[in-house]
Amino acid sequence: MTPHFRFELLAGGAEGPRAGIFHTPHGPIETPVFAPVGTQGTVKAITPRDLEEIGVGLILANTYHLYLRPGDELIKRLGGLHTFMGWDKPILTDSGGFQVFSLSAISRIDDGGVTFKSHIDGSIHRFTPEKAIAIQENLGADIIMSFDQCPVPDDRAEVEKAVERTNRWAERGLAAHKRDDQALFGIVQGGIFDDLRVASVEFLVGLGFPGYAIGGLSVGETKEQMFRVLELVSSILPADKPRYLMGVGTPYDLVEGVARGIDIFDCVLPTRIARNGAALTLTGRLNMRNARYADDPAPLVEGCGCYTCRNFSRAYIRHLVTAHEILGHQLLTIHNIHTLVSLMRKIRSEILAGTFDAFRADFITAFEQPAGH
Amino acid sequence: MTPHFRFELLAGGAEGPRAGIFHTPHGPIETPVFAPVGTQGTVKAITPRDLEEIGVGLILANTYHLYLRPGDELIKRLGGLHTFMGWDKPILTDSGGFQVFSLSAISRIDDGGVTFKSHIDGSIHRFTPEKAIAIQENLGADIIMSFDQCPVPDDRAEVEKAVERTNRWAERGLAAHKRDDQALFGIVQGGIFDDLRVASVEFLVGLGFPGYAIGGLSVGETKEQMFRVLELVSSILPADKPRYLMGVGTPYDLVEGVARGIDIFDCVLPTRIARNGAALTLTGRLNMRNARYADDPAPLVEGCGCYTCRNFSRAYIRHLVTAHEILGHQLLTIHNIHTLVSLMRKIRSEILAGTFDAFRADFITAFEQPAGH
Repeated sequence: MTPHFRFELLAGGAEGPRAGIFHTPHGPIETPVFAPVGTQGTVKAITPRDLEEIGVGLILANTYHLYLRPGDELIKRLGGLHTFMGWDKPILTDSGGFQVFSLSAISRIDDGGVTFKSHIDGSIHRFTPEKAIAIQENLGADIIMSFDQCPVPDDRAEVEKAVERTNRWAERGLAAHKRDDQALFGIVQGGIFDDLRVASVEFLVGLGFPGYAIGGLSVGETKEQMFRVLELVSSILPADKPRYLMGVGTPYDLVEGVARGIDIFDCVLPTRIARNGAALTLTGRLNMRNARYADDPAPLVEGCGCYTCRNFSRAYIRHLVTAHEILGHQLLTIHNIHTLVSLMRKIRSEILAGTFDAFRADFITAFEQPAGH
Repeated sequence: MTPHFRFELLAGGAEGPRAGIFHTPHGPIETPVFAPVGTQGTVKAITPRDLEEIGVGLILANTYHLYLRPGDELIKRLGGLHTFMGWDKPILTDSGGFQVFSLSAISRIDDGGVTFKSHIDGSIHRFTPEKAIAIQENLGADIIMSFDQCPVPDDRAEVEKAVERTNRWAERGLAAHKRDDQALFGIVQGGIFDDLRVASVEFLVGLGFPGYAIGGLSVGETKEQMFRVLELVSSILPADKPRYLMGVGTPYDLVEGVARGIDIFDCVLPTRIARNGAALTLTGRLNMRNARYADDPAPLVEGCGCYTCRNFSRAYIRHLVTAHEILGHQLLTIHNIHTLVSLMRKIRSEILAGTFDAFRADFITAFEQPAGH
């Protein structure tokens, strides 16, 4: 780890719930942490000021999107992503791998990299492990990712190939990475196969990253399979490095992920469902289009301390959503992010107090796990 | 005027620039004032908190829209519009007249009122002068309007008929209005015809309203015609009552309207052009889609004190607008409303300092008057 980064583990070890502080050039991240997603250099429908007020400690931005628009060179010229988007706390960028595979039309994939068509204008581009690092160096996030291939989790031949490729790409990315004010994480792949996950961890740990991402989950496997992989991977990752579970963020998954040794999470869930008119609660979701809320004077969640719940009723938010008003997106986004960030604060304080197990048991009892999550 | 309202004129008389305080049940409005428009019970893409920070002293909401959705009875049950939309400062509602004539399909108009089809679902409704008052009593704004008919400004026969009808409707509205915590304004019509404007003013002043709106302007007449009407109407309206020029709000029109004795303005301009990707400046507009801003690190307006200009570059806002990000609407809305509200603050301080004439001369010199405004 470079002198700019230090992971201070305050409670817990390799396995089980952990609380710590990940020190970065843009300040400390209290872990476990939930990072809202700012795909195009903005967490959708919320100002940086409101993110700060909520207590957001880390946000994610997407390398693939920013490379295509407005361009990483442009962002570099304008002082880097922190300056560009007006956010002076820590930022994490992904490798672009997941988006290349899921959003663009792939025209060629080989051991050297991936050639793809932009989803915006159909233009042809190529990402290599070195290119993914170069883009992320231009963006200037605090935490950056190795280029990886995320396979279908239960196709063994494909997963095997993806692990090999991701390992080689991790090695090449590490060699290419020059900025010492960025922590480059390796990405563990291996689908639902224990031996492949172990091999992936061992290879990456051998290279020695300042942190590890766990990829290829929440992409079609069952909840039980995901949890088993997390337990396995946590048990063999070094205790003194942060672990980041990519793309996972329901309240239930946060509690259960933390219980399995995860420090960092990100997910589009709170912002995406806000734009669909849904409010997140710890025990489910409220579809604010529902006529039952039309004259409901209660806040979205009784006792919630967010700006939205302190000032507005369900009836008002239902009106905004029904009338297609942008303020509906704004208020639901504030509430939904607040919900996950304050859940994480609560989780962290329970871990530090040594009472996480009891908290978790109560939480799971209360939680109506939504179908498909 | 009811005991709840008092108009304190601090500078100026019947004609020329005036500065005052209009005291209302939800606090004082410093005049002259620009009111952003919250058509559906929300100023589009901005939170009440941001409106307060900008120093907005009054907002407008539309009777027609709120009657149709979510319904004035519902808003009344939920404690009135202030509580519903989380805005505890003064609110003004229009009469619904302009929207009925411009947005809905009119099926019948007679001396009793207007029967129309909802633009939302095609359902049939009828507004009468009494109904317009009843709806506005349910909404509970501080300043409310008589039901009026807004004609094409240069068709003398039509304007004549509209003045007569608006006068009768004003009389009926005044008789129907019961809440003493609302100031009901009469609406001056008369198009571009001096004698009809005079007749309208004389009739309404005879009825004795706590304030007067000037309608039927900015609907097709020339700028010179509008200014002439304002000068005429101001010269015969009582000096000790506030005057409200409906639907007018470019920087140029604010300065020139104030110069002609207007105290209150409203306009969708700052919020509407924000959603079209344009930034308002005192000397014109910036189309933020323009590629020239792609790598421009300057704020929208150098020296502007708004949240947007203190934190973000033109390049970033251009990116947000190009990438269809809601935050682009949010940041432009903040800037645009701030621009008009701080212009009004400046105008007011110049009037109080006795230096408005010099300010106006400098402003007009600098202003590139946009075509059509």
